[in-house]
Amino acid sequence: MRFTSEQHFDDGVLERRFTLGEVPGILWTPPTTTPAPLILMGHPGGLDRMYPRLVTRARHSAAAGHACATVELPGAGDRPALATVDQARTDLRRALAAGEPVTDDVVDRLVLPLVDRAVPEWQATLDALLALPGIGGPVGFSGGVIAIATRLAAVDPRIAAAVLFAGSYVPRSTFEEARKVTIPLLVLLQWDDEGNDRQMALDLFDAFGSQEKTLHANTGGHTGVPRFEGDDAGRFFARHLE
Amino acid sequence: MRFTSEQHFDDGVLERRFTLGEVPGILWTPPTTTPAPLILMGHPGGLDRMYPRLVTRARHSAAAGHACATVELPGAGDRPALATVDQARTDLRRALAAGEPVTDDVVDRLVLPLVDRAVPEWQATLDALLALPGIGGPVGFSGGVIAIATRLAAVDPRIAAAVLFAGSYVPRSTFEEARKVTIPLLVLLQWDDEGNDRQMALDLFDAFGSQEKTLHANTGGHTGVPRFEGDDAGRFFARHLE
Repeated sequence: MRFTSEQHFDDGVLERRFTLGEVPGILWTPPTTTPAPLILMGHPGGLDRMYPRLVTRARHSAAAGHACATVELPGAGDRPALATVDQARTDLRRALAAGEPVTDDVVDRLVLPLVDRAVPEWQATLDALLALPGIGGPVGFSGGVIAIATRLAAVDPRIAAAVLFAGSYVPRSTFEEARKVTIPLLVLLQWDDEGNDRQMALDLFDAFGSQEKTLHANTGGHTGVPRFEGDDAGRFFARHLE
Repeated sequence: MRFTSEQHFDDGVLERRFTLGEVPGILWTPPTTTPAPLILMGHPGGLDRMYPRLVTRARHSAAAGHACATVELPGAGDRPALATVDQARTDLRRALAAGEPVTDDVVDRLVLPLVDRAVPEWQATLDALLALPGIGGPVGFSGGVIAIATRLAAVDPRIAAAVLFAGSYVPRSTFEEARKVTIPLLVLLQWDDEGNDRQMALDLFDAFGSQEKTLHANTGGHTGVPRFEGDDAGRFFARHLE
């Protein structure tokens, strides 16, 4: 892990950009002296585009004493494009525009290559972050892509709790992985999400093996998550990461 | 409205039992000098049995400056039995025990007589409560029976926000009434509720006409609503009743 820049905010939060191998990322740490719990922040890809929302979430979490980190998604932002994923995205958009059903094949081609690449990258990031002074545990995951977060939670016992955003298509194999997830979950669903399958999201919530899982569904489209859900997520992590 | 007893708690909350005609009820008011917003607390019937949970919720709300009131359900507690409702309840239990489907007919016979009687009683209670010094507005409704709360919210513009408990069977006609409800809603659903139909609860959430509606679904059975949902309900009312 190589730090490439740093910035101090007036609330005492330190933002450091890094690269881990070829993967760019950002780490935000609160001005605390004890090791901070860590929240890995998922997103749909495109760190620059997502930065305003990510930094807001990170500073909000830092106020509660939590460090946050994120990395770029495979094939997104400045990373090399993934031609097969781009083709699947084109196919998905064409199907939606034509009012055709979204096939399992398209969803698998769109999502599984990202899951296969992103999960080991998140794990390598976690290895590096937990070796830093000031970063402790436990570790939470917050955000999308839900298929990535699900596999990460299924295979990495360091993830202690997760806030998942049910805002993307889910491969059938993700349902099998969901059954292996046993950590406390808060799943966010936008009830009128135009690019999502509501029933699939409800079925996935049902599939998770966790004894403690909560679904928060709100009216509105994909980007319309109400502001109070950020506060609810903060309280969820306060219950489970401290 | 005739007060029949009063009790002062050490947190300054005043509990007064009352009767309104033949309907017994309880009013809890916080130790504030300005008129308090009012929360009507629904329940499944049986004030004495429900009292411990109701008084806990009421004192929690009083700490936030809200008055709370509840009345006995028709046919419940010390009120005269409703023979047709009791028969429908027997029929429902027999159907569930035999693994038979729950018919619309049984649900209508079980729930509609309660809705028809309870809604005007809640409205008369509201007339009397809002005439008292110390009780202001706006007014919220919190709890079940969801078919009663839905019609009350559909017909009485004094109800400004509601926390609904999707924990009972819903007549088909309630879906039509739900479309007329436009106030902010927080709907609680116990995902593994043994005496409830999950898909019906999700369909009812979908049917509400409200622009701002949130569903909180949690693992667990009918009586297993997590403690943190009480806090969430309090924050919901703080947003909408102040």
